[in-house]
Amino acid sequence: MYERYWRQMGDKTTVVIPGWKFISYFSDKRNLCWFLEPEFGNAIIRLHKLVGNAVTDDRYIVVGTGSTQLFQAVLYAVSSPNASEPINVVSAAPFYSSYPLITDFLKSGLYKWAGDAHKFKKENKPCIELVTSPNNPDGSSRQSVVNQKQGILIHDLAYYWPQYTSISSSPADHDIMLFTVSKTTGHAGTRLGWALVKDQEIAKKMTDFIVLSTIGVSKESQLRAAKILQVLSDSHQNKGHFKESQPFFDHSYNLMAKRWKQLRGAVKTSKLFSLPEFPHGRCAFSGHTFASQPAFAWLKCEGETEDCESFLRDHNILTRSGKHFGDSAKYVRISVLPRDELFDQFIDRLAAINST
Amino acid sequence: MYERYWRQMGDKTTVVIPGWKFISYFSDKRNLCWFLEPEFGNAIIRLHKLVGNAVTDDRYIVVGTGSTQLFQAVLYAVSSPNASEPINVVSAAPFYSSYPLITDFLKSGLYKWAGDAHKFKKENKPCIELVTSPNNPDGSSRQSVVNQKQGILIHDLAYYWPQYTSISSSPADHDIMLFTVSKTTGHAGTRLGWALVKDQEIAKKMTDFIVLSTIGVSKESQLRAAKILQVLSDSHQNKGHFKESQPFFDHSYNLMAKRWKQLRGAVKTSKLFSLPEFPHGRCAFSGHTFASQPAFAWLKCEGETEDCESFLRDHNILTRSGKHFGDSAKYVRISVLPRDELFDQFIDRLAAINST
Repeated sequence: MYERYWRQMGDKTTVVIPGWKFISYFSDKRNLCWFLEPEFGNAIIRLHKLVGNAVTDDRYIVVGTGSTQLFQAVLYAVSSPNASEPINVVSAAPFYSSYPLITDFLKSGLYKWAGDAHKFKKENKPCIELVTSPNNPDGSSRQSVVNQKQGILIHDLAYYWPQYTSISSSPADHDIMLFTVSKTTGHAGTRLGWALVKDQEIAKKMTDFIVLSTIGVSKESQLRAAKILQVLSDSHQNKGHFKESQPFFDHSYNLMAKRWKQLRGAVKTSKLFSLPEFPHGRCAFSGHTFASQPAFAWLKCEGETEDCESFLRDHNILTRSGKHFGDSAKYVRISVLPRDELFDQFIDRLAAINST
Repeated sequence: MYERYWRQMGDKTTVVIPGWKFISYFSDKRNLCWFLEPEFGNAIIRLHKLVGNAVTDDRYIVVGTGSTQLFQAVLYAVSSPNASEPINVVSAAPFYSSYPLITDFLKSGLYKWAGDAHKFKKENKPCIELVTSPNNPDGSSRQSVVNQKQGILIHDLAYYWPQYTSISSSPADHDIMLFTVSKTTGHAGTRLGWALVKDQEIAKKMTDFIVLSTIGVSKESQLRAAKILQVLSDSHQNKGHFKESQPFFDHSYNLMAKRWKQLRGAVKTSKLFSLPEFPHGRCAFSGHTFASQPAFAWLKCEGETEDCESFLRDHNILTRSGKHFGDSAKYVRISVLPRDELFDQFIDRLAAINST
């Protein structure tokens, strides 16, 4: 979905890296996260200040190979190496289907997946709670469920950008916040995420994790992402240089609005399906008042269809069953971000089911 | 050490990446390792065929965020998720100091560090043995020590390149071989390694690991490394285009030879220190007959000095004690790859100790 926008921008976001530069492991030996390229750190701070979605003052920035690696870095950083048993990791269902897999695949003695935060709440045991907001898969805005006094919260804010949801008038100010380039600009292949971390010791241990896991993070990815994020900010702040194209978030907001309109149009006429409804909110960044238009549609098969994924597969629509997300198979997750042709084809097929 | 060479090459290795390209997670959906950029895969095969250091035919290539990540991917791939206890991971001392840390930092239930392969041999239990050849830290050429019938071997061949050691007349042909860009060309910040894997199932599980760990590997790193490796091969195969500079391995072989001559010169006159001696071998790639000139010097304090690291620190030489490598504190590891100024300074300081 984003490719077309960046193509329009021509060579403004082209990155050129000479073969003899950026050879070393080190980016900035004085920084706690010594493999963070200063250019990338600066681009992140500028973007957050522009959008107003997260506090960056008095925060440590830890860069990771995508937010997937950062999530694991946080688990390592906040769990105790000497605990008698692994700490429980929970998230309110429906949750991102990769979280249980990533938490458990190495059978770590430090942490283990304990499922739905709603069910876990009754157990009153220590835990790490993942708060994904807007949520993957269902797009809802979320807060902590377990709400322990000494509970450890990880806020995954990958989708907290103004093309997907309205930005609150006060920037997010949590202890540990995760972001990723892929959901901000679409550059998934760059494998780059960042964490904003209040506590120095946690930031230090996250850095240790990334050193043990991959000895830092690709310089090339950081240099390219720095350029792209700077051009993104420029598209809003130096509009004169961008006569041919809209500012990035305006363009992507409009595209998401159009797609959700198509999607709701295709679903509305039918009694077979339903979509979540989101409250309207005023976006402090854009000034628009709108309901969330998430990156994923959390579609429910109404009526007697129990396995929505199979039902849609029979109509040549590939989705991911709600059971992978800790929820019912009556739900499926569908991406709203594919290329235009694919998205239009999906809408046509969905509408065709309704009309038969 | 390598920076000067790549600077001489001017813009031949400059990579240019437009903002709208290489956005997707996917590089080649038909490949088992679907996030491997075909350009990078081709550059690897061409380079191995040029040097003759490893078999690539009928091998799967798995790309990783440095060989550090690939090492972990192998541990995951070859250990059994249903075993009653973690499998032992061993390597002959002295071994790379990060191996124990990387193996144990998540307290995995799949595998655990079990130390020196020589000591472990008597136990006659299943294990994964790491064979690092040439070895980090001591530069020796190695073979399996435990030598079990059904033992699993990981060959870390990061330093098996003709600037460091002579290349055998028959290419290495092990089941699992790890390489890294950082030790081949010096581009450590690129965080890129590759595995050559015989068994499809192991290659598949390694790919799974990298998906769970980081959802693939930076496209930017792969594109840049592809360019650099192709220019490296060109410097040998299309010499006409490179009038001003030597072929890469000639240049780096000469530089290593010069540095080892300086080093041996500084040590020879003294009874305080000794260095390992290596057998001479004929390099099937270059035709030179020479003794290994490793990336690290494994220096021993002779006589009564028990803590060689402290002794050298008192003379303003920073090294890493042998105790981190599963060996005696009478040894230290010293890098032979720093920039010229640093290396010359080190040699001067070492020589000064001898003359006092």
